[in-house]
Amino acid sequence: MKNIRLTFAYDGTDFQGYQRQPVGRTVQGALESVISRVTNGPITLYGAGRTDSGVHAAGQVANFRTGTRLTTAEMHSAFNALLPVDIAVHRVEEVPETFHARFSARARRYEYRIRNTLCRDVFSQRFELHHPKPLDRDAMIRGCHCLMGERDFASFRASGDSSAHSVRRMIDAGGRNEGEVLILFFEANAFLQHMIRIIVGTLLIVGRGNMTVRDFEKIIDARDRAAAGPTAPPHGLCLTNVRYSD
Amino acid sequence: MKNIRLTFAYDGTDFQGYQRQPVGRTVQGALESVISRVTNGPITLYGAGRTDSGVHAAGQVANFRTGTRLTTAEMHSAFNALLPVDIAVHRVEEVPETFHARFSARARRYEYRIRNTLCRDVFSQRFELHHPKPLDRDAMIRGCHCLMGERDFASFRASGDSSAHSVRRMIDAGGRNEGEVLILFFEANAFLQHMIRIIVGTLLIVGRGNMTVRDFEKIIDARDRAAAGPTAPPHGLCLTNVRYSD
Repeated sequence: MKNIRLTFAYDGTDFQGYQRQPVGRTVQGALESVISRVTNGPITLYGAGRTDSGVHAAGQVANFRTGTRLTTAEMHSAFNALLPVDIAVHRVEEVPETFHARFSARARRYEYRIRNTLCRDVFSQRFELHHPKPLDRDAMIRGCHCLMGERDFASFRASGDSSAHSVRRMIDAGGRNEGEVLILFFEANAFLQHMIRIIVGTLLIVGRGNMTVRDFEKIIDARDRAAAGPTAPPHGLCLTNVRYSD
Repeated sequence: MKNIRLTFAYDGTDFQGYQRQPVGRTVQGALESVISRVTNGPITLYGAGRTDSGVHAAGQVANFRTGTRLTTAEMHSAFNALLPVDIAVHRVEEVPETFHARFSARARRYEYRIRNTLCRDVFSQRFELHHPKPLDRDAMIRGCHCLMGERDFASFRASGDSSAHSVRRMIDAGGRNEGEVLILFFEANAFLQHMIRIIVGTLLIVGRGNMTVRDFEKIIDARDRAAAGPTAPPHGLCLTNVRYSD
């Protein structure tokens, strides 16, 4: 049996999230169906990040085991030929038996895009939150910097989250401007359910001038979901990269 | 009565073209419906370019006459609030009575985007033709240069085109590369139906190495639709700008 690693992108708009479900179109379901047909045997795909419904990925990673005689180049061509247009496989590699896309991952990196212009952009609106009113983008970026380090992120945890605990290590958090688009980035060993979307929903209150950066920092320390703001919409969020030791 | 000029963009994917039709979702129909509600009276919109089904616009222009007391700023906000997300109005201006978006236009500019990579890009695939096999992009750009000047473009005219004649003045035609995306551009006083898509469909034969630039030039002189290549798909094409004397 070979252990195969996939790196792939998807437009999450028309998916009910990454993870396979009994009903509904999912990224995992679409990939498993195509991979099983190409490799001529049922396979199970292990993904690094279980993105929510409507969240995108530019660099998602997953692995599966197969006895196929196809080369990785042959699999790559066949997968892209049979997958729907909103999923694209960028790399197919054979990896050591011990590699597991989820458990071997050292860090996940996400970006959240906010277009801060009066008028929406029809060409990027599937991948950005449109915020027509003024935002103090510098304050929002300073808010991101407060998130660095190993901390209890209970304030930014969805009520339905089933993790054993809410301590995570934030390796990088900040923002940059590309013209009128504010891109907030977050890299951590792992994330709680809805964690980035709740952080962004709270930072938008800071951006609108209704909360100071200091008050934002206090919300982290409160370890209370009720202290934080609303969950930002999913379509601005994208899993950009998953980091491994190799 | 005021004469109002709109500049607007749309993602043409989910429209049956610009022009209103008895059945089907069209850009003109969606705009007329919203403008009539906001200005409290039926209006007719005159558009500069009647883009095909699936073709996009970044800078389409249209005008209408209205007796509304709303300011242009108020109309602008109301239009964008009520329009579907795949249309965005960028400017609303009062113009002289004599202005007509179609008849006053001096030139229309279009771009056709071709992504020449093995793997498709899920984030831009609605707006680019994906061509995974190698293309001689320089030859395609040289082919564009042959189109310059006032000429009879009968070879690049759809069989259903109803224009009185097929002479058009090409003011600018060429191409540039943005990474692995080839962007071909065409500016003319006006275009025949499917003209750019037939030109691009023929240039793709040049790009694949199955036709020389000299043979492409001979096709222009043939003035015969049968001499040209197939009509390229609509989704790579975008109306980027309309030019007026002012």
